[in-house]
Amino acid sequence: MQLGMIGLGRMGANMVERLLAAGHDCVVYDAHAAAMMDLVGKGAEGSDSLEAFVRKLEKPRLVWLMLPAAVVDPVLDDLTPLLEPGDIVVDGGNSYYHDDLRRAEALRPRAVHYVDVGVSGGVWGRERGYCLMIGGEEPILQHLDPIFRTLAPGVEAAPRTTGASGPPEPAEWGYLHCGPHGAGHFVKMVHNGIEYALMAAYAEGFNILRHADAGLVKRDKDAETTPLRHPERYAYDIDIARVAELWRRGSVVGSWLLDLSAHALRASPDLAAFSGRVSDSGEGRWTLQAAIEEGVPAPVIGAALFNRFESRGSADFANRLLSALRWEFGGHQEKPKP
Amino acid sequence: MQLGMIGLGRMGANMVERLLAAGHDCVVYDAHAAAMMDLVGKGAEGSDSLEAFVRKLEKPRLVWLMLPAAVVDPVLDDLTPLLEPGDIVVDGGNSYYHDDLRRAEALRPRAVHYVDVGVSGGVWGRERGYCLMIGGEEPILQHLDPIFRTLAPGVEAAPRTTGASGPPEPAEWGYLHCGPHGAGHFVKMVHNGIEYALMAAYAEGFNILRHADAGLVKRDKDAETTPLRHPERYAYDIDIARVAELWRRGSVVGSWLLDLSAHALRASPDLAAFSGRVSDSGEGRWTLQAAIEEGVPAPVIGAALFNRFESRGSADFANRLLSALRWEFGGHQEKPKP
Amino acid sequence: MQLGMIGLGRMGANMVERLLAAGHDCVVYDAHAAAMMDLVGKGAEGSDSLEAFVRKLEKPRLVWLMLPAAVVDPVLDDLTPLLEPGDIVVDGGNSYYHDDLRRAEALRPRAVHYVDVGVSGGVWGRERGYCLMIGGEEPILQHLDPIFRTLAPGVEAAPRTTGASGPPEPAEWGYLHCGPHGAGHFVKMVHNGIEYALMAAYAEGFNILRHADAGLVKRDKDAETTPLRHPERYAYDIDIARVAELWRRGSVVGSWLLDLSAHALRASPDLAAFSGRVSDSGEGRWTLQAAIEEGVPAPVIGAALFNRFESRGSADFANRLLSALRWEFGGHQEKPKP
Amino acid sequence: MQLGMIGLGRMGANMVERLLAAGHDCVVYDAHAAAMMDLVGKGAEGSDSLEAFVRKLEKPRLVWLMLPAAVVDPVLDDLTPLLEPGDIVVDGGNSYYHDDLRRAEALRPRAVHYVDVGVSGGVWGRERGYCLMIGGEEPILQHLDPIFRTLAPGVEAAPRTTGASGPPEPAEWGYLHCGPHGAGHFVKMVHNGIEYALMAAYAEGFNILRHADAGLVKRDKDAETTPLRHPERYAYDIDIARVAELWRRGSVVGSWLLDLSAHALRASPDLAAFSGRVSDSGEGRWTLQAAIEEGVPAPVIGAALFNRFESRGSADFANRLLSALRWEFGGHQEKPKP
Repeated sequence: MQLGMIGLGRMGANMVERLLAAGHDCVVYDAHAAAMMDLVGKGAEGSDSLEAFVRKLEKPRLVWLMLPAAVVDPVLDDLTPLLEPGDIVVDGGNSYYHDDLRRAEALRPRAVHYVDVGVSGGVWGRERGYCLMIGGEEPILQHLDPIFRTLAPGVEAAPRTTGASGPPEPAEWGYLHCGPHGAGHFVKMVHNGIEYALMAAYAEGFNILRHADAGLVKRDKDAETTPLRHPERYAYDIDIARVAELWRRGSVVGSWLLDLSAHALRASPDLAAFSGRVSDSGEGRWTLQAAIEEGVPAPVIGAALFNRFESRGSADFANRLLSALRWEFGGHQEKPKP
Repeated sequence: MQLGMIGLGRMGANMVERLLAAGHDCVVYDAHAAAMMDLVGKGAEGSDSLEAFVRKLEKPRLVWLMLPAAVVDPVLDDLTPLLEPGDIVVDGGNSYYHDDLRRAEALRPRAVHYVDVGVSGGVWGRERGYCLMIGGEEPILQHLDPIFRTLAPGVEAAPRTTGASGPPEPAEWGYLHCGPHGAGHFVKMVHNGIEYALMAAYAEGFNILRHADAGLVKRDKDAETTPLRHPERYAYDIDIARVAELWRRGSVVGSWLLDLSAHALRASPDLAAFSGRVSDSGEGRWTLQAAIEEGVPAPVIGAALFNRFESRGSADFANRLLSALRWEFGGHQEKPKP
Repeated sequence: MQLGMIGLGRMGANMVERLLAAGHDCVVYDAHAAAMMDLVGKGAEGSDSLEAFVRKLEKPRLVWLMLPAAVVDPVLDDLTPLLEPGDIVVDGGNSYYHDDLRRAEALRPRAVHYVDVGVSGGVWGRERGYCLMIGGEEPILQHLDPIFRTLAPGVEAAPRTTGASGPPEPAEWGYLHCGPHGAGHFVKMVHNGIEYALMAAYAEGFNILRHADAGLVKRDKDAETTPLRHPERYAYDIDIARVAELWRRGSVVGSWLLDLSAHALRASPDLAAFSGRVSDSGEGRWTLQAAIEEGVPAPVIGAALFNRFESRGSADFANRLLSALRWEFGGHQEKPKP
Repeated sequence: MQLGMIGLGRMGANMVERLLAAGHDCVVYDAHAAAMMDLVGKGAEGSDSLEAFVRKLEKPRLVWLMLPAAVVDPVLDDLTPLLEPGDIVVDGGNSYYHDDLRRAEALRPRAVHYVDVGVSGGVWGRERGYCLMIGGEEPILQHLDPIFRTLAPGVEAAPRTTGASGPPEPAEWGYLHCGPHGAGHFVKMVHNGIEYALMAAYAEGFNILRHADAGLVKRDKDAETTPLRHPERYAYDIDIARVAELWRRGSVVGSWLLDLSAHALRASPDLAAFSGRVSDSGEGRWTLQAAIEEGVPAPVIGAALFNRFESRGSADFANRLLSALRWEFGGHQEKPKP
């Protein structure tokens, strides 16, 4: 099947490679021409311009956008006039699902079909396959099935769930029609919200293990430092890289994120190459906002999100107010920053 | 190697089976004689009494306790006088590591060696193997290596971490000497704290997906109900059993807990057999208390723990006070419970 | 000064009374004619219709809306065509500040001035005065100063802050021009977010005191119930109504909410008239959403908000999944709901 | 009535002054002789040694300890042999109530009575009076009533709660017999837990107001920075010192902590003298641990406590792991620390 890919960053380029390897035809376009060269060498057809790109596609055209969220709308503005009724645009990036609803509405009068696909798998996807969460019209998604099946990891990527029988359904291949427009990115959004919380769960746990030597550390003896009543209970020097490795086999907390933790900690038990300023790219925020609008509690995801904000210093003023209040009512002197 | 097992519940019996299958000799004892019959049929040697049990063990004896935490101390009281210098007692249950420190101290004058082993793997361990977190004296642990290696899942249970080379080390087999007395249960405690948070992460996420139809639900229109400003954004009817299945392949949130979620949701998408009263068996509490004593933040694990408390109604009085205050300052009438 | 009030519920009627008592002229209108009768008896001028209401106002007209948030826009739709350039509309209800921005924009072409006022004080405001958080154009707010000064509690309502000197400024009277359109409701929104968290702080604390008898309560002895290691440390039967009274004098936690807690607990220490289903009327949600958009952590306000959601049963499915997972991996039976 | 005070720091010295002013006799002792001079000038009787101090007290002696928690036990070790049956020791510091239980037990064989008093009021207590939370034996507390009444703020310190009638009871004076040994410090502990959460509520709220200009700040445009979708909604420059002043009159969030916030922010709107490293002196930790042992949720107090830990950098390793994981699965580059 033929597919046109716009956006040849880490994700887009890898997806094209996976599609080419399975025998699909790929026309590619990227504002940075250099990004195309490597793929052309591997069998993709490059394009000098957006117009050329569109011309090379057979009708009904299939255009897959793999772009930073902020760039999707400008590219769509340029692309849409070149499309014809029946053409299909897939947004495989990390768009907010509100934008999907708006874009599907805007394309409807032109009879251009819009599909939103949340893609998980990161830099490993070319090899492992991509988990695809899809929103859009059912007949269009049927039409795209060969593409989805190629990109997805496949049934063998995990043991079959007990109770499943018959020919594997798409979810077991690793792709799913989640619902109408926006449903794909909605599910991907929540996926990332869960991801934030899973990551924080490991991070907190490993941090507690790392500080299991608190009883061996010299503590200030002053009114501003809580004494540790039983230092002998915190006299452990735990090799957390090995613990991460250990838990990968047979434990309840095994996961892909744990596999990655084991890899990172093996390479550098202190993770000294990182400063601990943790970015967020939006999905965790949106997940929490969805929870709020639905009236559903999400304290764990919320704590994970706020923790990232704090890692970036955005609680500084709040903390200064706490110190100021302690000074106001109790005359407590603030201790210097470590 | 010979091992004596006391406590033949779900965990103990399965572990004996796994040891027998690998050719170890097992002497077993349980207050409920019936529990022994099945294992005797499979090759274990049963015992009429604790005394008989001890007599059947070769010196230095190896006694493994697989008992509810509350029963360990009484059994130890009966067992200890029967033991001799050089004998080894392993506590493989879910003891609080504070108890390990105390017990090791109490056994020291008798030259009986104490080993604490945190065991993860649940009802699946017989087949998958058990992840073993071990605390105690190095020479004793060396001596027990054949037992640990049999119980552990083995190297093949997970792909080798990139960067690991040479003969696999114990952590890669699924067992680890974590440190001195108590270190095994300390690491297991934190493991369970992480487990609480991982579970909560999925639970919150699936709950948000389940309520993605909030815009389709009729809402009361009164001053006590926040209106949903964009109901059209919450018009999804998401098949969360299929989403759980989907995420098992290629996504960032894949894990064993997700595998189990997919299984549970496939069998019953509404989970109607459960009421949502969530127990906790202590490790989550202890993890949070360790974090507090170390002065290390654990907001995600904390939220997961408190959530369980709330599921059991223990916030009821606090909530009544909130309603009372809303009445006091604003004349807000409480809405009836659903 | 003359003011026209639309909306004579608890808040609107009390505000008119306070204004009348200070010598202002009030024209009143409410869809429910009965609501006007009492105020007409106290000196207000009633209106048969919105048209009559507008006719009775001197130009430039001052119309103050004190309406449920959901009704403001429909009333504005009817009212706006009756207004003339230079007229002023004040929204004193609990509008979302996004709506203020939109409405000010919509009224601008007609040269009708829009003012948003967040009002705190609840049912006590008639007597104590209202704390007014105001957004809008400076000259308009200058013009309304006599109204604000009358409604506000006045300088004597609190001791002057050390360091303040000269004639008291508006904030010391209890009203403040917070910024342009929307700023009033923005500050009121955050006020309510803080209020949620303050309420939760007391609720949690009193709940901990109330359960200080946990060691006297019989506990189940089973694997699903964490034993209390030191029941003798939880053998207190604390009179929390008296504690609330106590803390009102000299403690660090004294506040108006504590005064109200003391009142509620004195009347009914068990608060048995309440079921603990806690509503929220939107501001806490919006505060958290603002924090998220600003990238600023708000874990305490977030926990308070999510707690309210949980009190309404919206975590039920999430909790069922937790129980299901405990069954899946550990064979843990769920205990019955209390 | 005669009272002997050991420990003449900020708290002890002020309490002696308040007692002297009311006509009580005070014998004082402090390891630092200089601390006594000022009080001797105001009418207290100084002591050269602990022995001299004890000798000057009439029997049954009343000894009040106002010492850092870590010093109470050593001083008691020196003091106890000097005491006689019937003497009374009061610990008015910030002891953990577990220690009260132990000490009362240890003194019982000598027939020395132990009383624990949690004292709130900080540096303002001399003038405002102290809120006293008291644990011990009823007859002893009756005997001490004149002391408590003098130290407490008195009935006039707050308006009487509606519904209260007859002669004011002790709680209305500002002191309360909370229960047996330890109950005083237990209630004080929870008081401080609430205090942490109240402080955090204001800190978060003011921080959200301070960042209401997020839409005016230039943001990076990259995949690691979530775009702000509606910058025009975050275009406020709010004078938070004035907002703090404003809320002191008529609002629902009025409190003594708000009064102090208004004072601190008036003096320095940026609080630039503080770095935001927030200490904790133990009570918040103990409150959370009590909640955990009781099985009662305390997510708001917990978030407030963990926030303080984070302000001291103790999440750093956890945050580095988050950055490492983002690099592992997504190739996300960490942004430099601000």
